Parts: sequence; C-alpha cells; structure tokens
Amino acid sequence: MNKLHFRRRARMNAFEKIQSLYGEISDLGNASALLSWDQQTYMPPRGATARGMQLATLSGIIHERMTSPDLGGLIAEASGGKLTGDQAAYLRELSFARDRSMKLPAALVKEMSLEESKAFEAWTRARKLNDYGIFAPHLARVIELKKQCAECWGYAETPWDALATDYERGLTASRVESIFRPLREATVKLLQQIKARPQANTRFLDQKWDIDRQREFGLRVARDIGYDMAAGRQDLAPHPFCTNFGMGDVRITTRYSQTSLLDGLFGTVHETGHAMYEQGFDPADARSPLAEAPSLGVHESQSRFWEVRIAQSEAFWKHYYPILRQYFPGQLDDVMPEEFYRALNIIEPDFIRVEADEICYNLHVIIRFELEVGIFRGDLSVGDIPAAWNKLYKEYLGLDVPSDTLGCLQDVHWAYGSFGYFPTYTLGNIYCAMLVERMERDMPALWEMVAQGQFAPILQWLRENIHKVGRRHESAELIERVTGMPVTCDPLIRHLANKYRHLYGF
Amino acid sequence: MNKLHFRRRARMNAFEKIQSLYGEISDLGNASALLSWDQQTYMPPRGATARGMQLATLSGIIHERMTSPDLGGLIAEASGGKLTGDQAAYLRELSFARDRSMKLPAALVKEMSLEESKAFEAWTRARKLNDYGIFAPHLARVIELKKQCAECWGYAETPWDALATDYERGLTASRVESIFRPLREATVKLLQQIKARPQANTRFLDQKWDIDRQREFGLRVARDIGYDMAAGRQDLAPHPFCTNFGMGDVRITTRYSQTSLLDGLFGTVHETGHAMYEQGFDPADARSPLAEAPSLGVHESQSRFWEVRIAQSEAFWKHYYPILRQYFPGQLDDVMPEEFYRALNIIEPDFIRVEADEICYNLHVIIRFELEVGIFRGDLSVGDIPAAWNKLYKEYLGLDVPSDTLGCLQDVHWAYGSFGYFPTYTLGNIYCAMLVERMERDMPALWEMVAQGQFAPILQWLRENIHKVGRRHESAELIERVTGMPVTCDPLIRHLANKYRHLYGF
Repeated sequence: MNKLHFRRRARMNAFEKIQSLYGEISDLGNASALLSWDQQTYMPPRGATARGMQLATLSGIIHERMTSPDLGGLIAEASGGKLTGDQAAYLRELSFARDRSMKLPAALVKEMSLEESKAFEAWTRARKLNDYGIFAPHLARVIELKKQCAECWGYAETPWDALATDYERGLTASRVESIFRPLREATVKLLQQIKARPQANTRFLDQKWDIDRQREFGLRVARDIGYDMAAGRQDLAPHPFCTNFGMGDVRITTRYSQTSLLDGLFGTVHETGHAMYEQGFDPADARSPLAEAPSLGVHESQSRFWEVRIAQSEAFWKHYYPILRQYFPGQLDDVMPEEFYRALNIIEPDFIRVEADEICYNLHVIIRFELEVGIFRGDLSVGDIPAAWNKLYKEYLGLDVPSDTLGCLQDVHWAYGSFGYFPTYTLGNIYCAMLVERMERDMPALWEMVAQGQFAPILQWLRENIHKVGRRHESAELIERVTGMPVTCDPLIRHLANKYRHLYGF
Repeated sequence: MNKLHFRRRARMNAFEKIQSLYGEISDLGNASALLSWDQQTYMPPRGATARGMQLATLSGIIHERMTSPDLGGLIAEASGGKLTGDQAAYLRELSFARDRSMKLPAALVKEMSLEESKAFEAWTRARKLNDYGIFAPHLARVIELKKQCAECWGYAETPWDALATDYERGLTASRVESIFRPLREATVKLLQQIKARPQANTRFLDQKWDIDRQREFGLRVARDIGYDMAAGRQDLAPHPFCTNFGMGDVRITTRYSQTSLLDGLFGTVHETGHAMYEQGFDPADARSPLAEAPSLGVHESQSRFWEVRIAQSEAFWKHYYPILRQYFPGQLDDVMPEEFYRALNIIEPDFIRVEADEICYNLHVIIRFELEVGIFRGDLSVGDIPAAWNKLYKEYLGLDVPSDTLGCLQDVHWAYGSFGYFPTYTLGNIYCAMLVERMERDMPALWEMVAQGQFAPILQWLRENIHKVGRRHESAELIERVTGMPVTCDPLIRHLANKYRHLYGF
C-alpha cells in the first residue's frame, strides 16, 4: 500500500511537471498570438521586419520546448500510470501536438514563419494593386515549404491530408470530397431554382450607413448574445478574425463600410460566435491543451450558428428590427420587416467569400478546396491558379471574375500557408446544422426565445454541450456524441432547402 | 598564415553566435514590451491574470538565456580575440548586463518581485487614505531587499551607487551631490527673485479644450518635429510612456484632459522626444545591446529637449501660436502671443513633481535624491521620511506640505524599488542644456529655424551626435565627446537665469 501510494505520487509529480512546462508553452503561444493580433491591428508598417523575427523566435522556443527530451520523458512517465479521463485527454492532445512538432526540423519551422510574414506583406500589396505577380513567388515558396512539412508528417493519400489535420484531425481530401459532393450537387441545383424566381428588393440597402452607429449596433448585439466585454474587445482590421490570449482575453476584429449595413454586422456576430466559444472553456483547463476547440470545423460551427442560424433568422429580426430602425432613424421607415428579412437573405452569386450568402458560401469553399487539392496532387501550378479559380467560379456560381483582387487574392489564408483550412468553414456549416436539429429537439421554444431576444439558455446549451468540453473529444466524435449522428451534410441541405423554398416560393 | 586565418574565423564565429543568441533575447524583450504596452492600452480587465503569467514566463526565459553558461563561454571566447571597436562595445554592454543578472540569486529576485507587488498595493491604499503608516513597513522591506541587491552587486562608497548604476552607469551619490549642489543653490535664489515679481496671467487657460482637437494638434507637432509615424503610433493610456519593439516600431501614449490644454501637448512632445531617439539608432545595431541609450539621463535629455527647450520656447510659438488658434477657433482670439508664451512658462512652486515647472522640477528631484542618500547611508529612517520630506519642501520651495498624499506618497518609484532613478530626470535637464549650447554654436540659425517650423536640421544634429551612437559610450563620456565639457550644471543655470530674467523682468 505504501508502495502504491509512492508510485501514485510519482505519477502525479510527472503530470504536474508537464502542466508547468506546458503552461509556459501556452504562455508563449499567447504572447505570440498577441504579436500577431497587433500586427493586424495597430502595428506601424515599419515594424513588420522586427515583428517577423520576434514571431520566429517565439515559435522557435515553442518548438524547442515542445520537442524537448525532458517533456518526452515526463509524458512517457505519466502515461505509464493510472490516469483520470481528463489527464489521459491532456496527454493525448499534448503528445499529438508534440509528435507533429518533432517531425518538423527547427530550421523549417523558422523559415516558414519568416516566409509567411513576407508572404503576408506581399499579399497585402498584391491585393491592393491587383497584381498577382507580386504574391505568386511568395506563394510558391510557402507551398514548397508546406510540401516539405507534409513529407515530414507523412500521409496516406495526398500531402494535403497531412496539412489539413492541423485544422481537423484525420481529415483527408477523399473524405472531404465524399462529404462535400452531395452538398455541392444540391447547392448548384438549389441555386438554379432560386435563379428562376424573382429577386427580393434590396435597393433600400443602398444608403450611407453611419459607421459609428453600425459599430454601436454590432457591439450591442454581441453583448446581448453573451460576449463578455470584460474579457474581450473589438478592433478594426482589414480581415476580421478572433484571437485569444487566455480565456479572459478573447478579442475580435471587424471591418465596417459606410455602404454596407449588413457585412459589418454579420462579421461582428460571426467573430462573436468564435469569441464566446473561447470564453466558454472550463477555467480549470487554463494553460492546458484541453482549453481549445477539437477542430476549426467545430469552431466554425459556433460562429456560423450565431451569424447565420441566429442573426439571419426571421425570429431574430422580430426582436431586432425595431431596434435597428432606432439606430438609423429615418433610413428604414418605409421598409417592412418581411422586406428586410428577405433582403438580408438574398441569394446572389458574387465574388467575395466573406460577403457570400448562406448558399453560395459553401461553393466558394468548395472551389478553394478543389484548387488546393489540385496544387498538392501536382495538377495545378501557382501560375495557373488565377485561371483555374476563374473557371470554377464560372462553372459553380456562373460568375466572370473581373480581377484577382476580387478573385484569388481575396483571402489571406494561403499567404499564411493555411492549406486544408478552407473546408473547415463548410464543415462548420454542416456541424452547425446538425447541432441546430438537436437543439430544436432539446429546446422546443428555441425560436420563441430568439424572437424575444433571450439568448442565455441557447448560450448555456452550447456551453454545456460544446464549449466546456474543450478538446476532450475529436471533432467527429464530439458532434456524434451531441447529435447522435455521424457527420453528414443532410441537415444542412434540409435547412437550406426549407428556408429558401419558403423565401423564394418554389 | 593558415593557422591565423582559422583562428580568426573561430573568433568571428563566436561573435556571430553571440549575435544570434542575443538577437533572440532582444526579440523576447521586444515581445515582452508589446505585452506590457497592450496591458496599459487595450487589454480587457479579465486578461490581467494570464498576462501576468505570460510576462513572468518571458522574463524567466530572458534571465535563463542571459545567464546561460553557453553565452558565458562564447563571450569569453570572443573577448580573447581581436575586436573592432563596435564589437568590443557590444561585448562590454552584454557582459555588464549579464554580470548584473548573474550576481542576483533567483530567490532574491523572486522575493523582490513579490515585495514590490505588495508595496505597490500598500502605496496605492496609503496614497488614497493619506496614511503613510500603511506604506512604511513595505517600504522598509523593499529598502532592505535593495540593500541586499547592492551587496550582491558591490559598490565603492554607498549602496545607493550600486542601485543607481541600473539607470546611469557608474553614478555615485557623491558625484551627484557635487553636480547638483550649485544647481540647487542657483535655483533657490532664482526662485526668490521670481517670487518678488508680478505673476503672469493664466486665467484664459481655464476653458474647455476639445480632446480630439488637442490630439490632432499634438500629433501634428509630433510629425512636424520628426516623429516617423510609419514607425510609430500614439495611443491613450492613464500614464504617458514611450516603448518600442525594435527601432521600426516605437510607440507613445498620452493622456488628455478637457480642462488642460498644455499638459497633453507637452506630454506628447516629451514622449515624442523619447520616441525619436529610439527611431534614430543605427539600423545596423538592430537586435544588439548597442541599440539603446547609454542611460536614462541621456534618454531624458532628448525628451526634455523637445518638450521644454523647443516646445516651450518663444521661437516655437512664433510658428505654432497662429496654428493653435485655428485648432481652437474663438478660444484664444483675445490672447496675445506674448501673453500665451508667458502663461505656459509660469513659475509657481507646487507640491506635485509631474506638474512642476521648468525651475521647480529640479528641486523636486533634488529633494528625493537627498532623502534616498540619507536612507542608504543610514542617516534617515523610514519613519522619519515624511518629516524630512516636508522640511526640504519648506526649505527649497517655500511650501508647507499639507498631506503625505501631496508629499512623500505622490510618486510610485520607491514602491517599485527604483532608487537612483529620480536624479536621471535632472541629469537629463543638465545634459540637455549642455547639448543646446553646443547646438547653438554648431547651428547659429537654430532659433530662426524653430521660428519657421524647420526642425529637420535639429533632428539631424541629434541623430548624428546622439542617436546613432547608441550605447557605444557611457553617458558622461558621450556628453563630453559631443559638448567638449565634463558634465556640469552651468549651462542649465545659464539657460534658466537668462530665460526667466527676461520673462519676469529682473
């Protein structure tokens, strides 16, 4: 009994040492995230070079510490003993991340970080000047380095799979293809049916919408749905995002345009959905690998839930339309609530993903996914991306892309080497639709609550079922545990068909 | 010859390795500085706990790397060989900082950090409640620990010297005494002469000054005098400061009050002076210990130069007064330029250092310095500080201090254990006056240029003589090289006497 007692203490000590070591790694990750946040919000242009080096140094130290033999020995020691479920999950996540890091040489990590900083600067200029040529050599270099990563990590089918698993564990190009195919087919068909119907009136949206008022209204909605502003803030940035430096400091960025009332609002609500997830992890999981989403797809299910399913629903505007009218006095007096609801749900293929409607959005994603697979299967060269991009936009969305700024230069992701990232947006929509069907069964009064502006029980449901769980389960497992179904696009297709049949009357 | 060639390469490699190691330490210091900047500008309140841990982790890693035997070995190896002047300066600065770190036991560093936190809390309460008794035991403990630090570092005359050298290398209490004595005597006499003269009218300053307009005007001046906003920015913070994350990203903060036109402006110009120094280091010195000021006194000479010597000069307002009037239409119409110039240079002894005028400021500093020396020579006990403080304020400034809140509890510095810091403020004024006399000889048209709003040649002079030099020389040596004089308060006394004799007519 004494012996057992001592063995248990020894195991606890190893685990506690791991917590302390990883706690510092987590601190460094948070520091690094703040440097990136600042890079995209407030950093003056001439700070870029030094910032790149600072980020490279931090990621070098994180890598060094993640791959240190000390940590390896402790993980082996701790894993040898009896563990609680949470401890086992902690070690599983840490080991996975550690193995990923171990397989990458430090020099490659550092080079990637430097190249990505340069590629980001080049992308910014290229997009501004509509000059893909500025970006192309940097993109080629980033892809080359990412291929090297994939070789280090190993993969069963295509190098893309090795990259995608950073965002969605175990995802493969062929699995995505099989999940996306029925969605793409249903969506293209739905789009044709919608195109045959008369379009809703949106002319009243072509007004000047005061940016301060937009910001106030957006922040009001963010607060109402449950964003804790004592643990968050909103800033302006050219590309909206959410980041955090611990669950007590979760920030969002938004961009507002005077000519668009809805983009800024839905962007804000989208990032707020991400932010509330990060604010909702179990405080006991702070500085641990469990205080994270299991995947970007699950993360996106939260942002899309609030952005699309809540803030673009009829019930939501029953509550908020009178309030919105007060924020913009005189500008919406002649617009009936039904007219407004139709206008904000207008389906109209256009060039920019982040401004896309609920149906087209997934096609934007599917196009990027297909191009990425082409790049990493070796069927598509960097120089041919603009042409391939434009061809798919014509095929799926019926659009002639007028410029690369409105085409393949619109997204920052590839500059950051984030290949395998885009599909998680549509996986998010798929998970979200599955969760909503479950939520409707658990809370039959769901939409009445939304219509009364009561969001607390809804956030509470997400807290319990998704947020607090953190990274205890992998994404597909988590979604199946909560919804009782394996991952499928059927609920999403059902939702889209129901909603837009009703709106467009077919 | 081959042997020599190889030995030279070996030496170069050691130095290059040091550059790479210290480059990363510098990156971590910059990252840490950004975390602190954010803490004081944008961090939401619930982020504080995690931010504390992130900063502690970073400073732990910096300490670990600065004191690592690897670095020690490389310094020894590099120092053994032939070095350029710059390389020798680099190693001298690095060794000095490393030795300072190595000499303090980790336990003492930790205890000090804890005691300083407690002392800060106690100081905050004591100042609020005007109860020195709350602060006294904590102050005594901080002084005790600082004495221990001084013993670790070593000193020739008094423990105070060992502490002051953190801010001004090689400074000793007796040297400061001999520099300050004539300044104190001249200042007290000057003050008596001024008191005998009629006071200038300042009633027109008691208006409401729009904060946005204040900010715009302050930024305009900052740009005009040469602050490169592509490598800087200004944010709001409760305490004005300047910080940098490399010379391409040097930021200032300011606070504005609607009831004060001048505090926000001169605060901005002061921090801009610091910022232009940081922007002006030699780019080749990036990530090296040479891209720093030799001392706080030299740094302060730059901020005080722009704040006091330039922005409070008659020539400056010849150019800017008509512009200021345009920024605040109707508010200064009846105020003649001469009246405005007199009002902003009003001399009036008061209790608070940070609000003091150009003459009284140095007396505030000298009082603190004399008390510090008393404490560390063992002539003054912690319990006797208030009485000693009040006695000196009566003697030098003619003031009856009404409360400790307005007396010895007004500054945070001692709670943080920053003994030896205060004199650098007045050393800054002294260095500044010495530099201006030299500048007037080098550029006879100096004040005509100021009157025409032409600051580029002035900044260029500072760039060449001070900024680009970085930390190649210690402060006293640098000042002597530039001005041709050993450090003396004579130029400062000359300046004050000339300026205020003219203003007050005696």
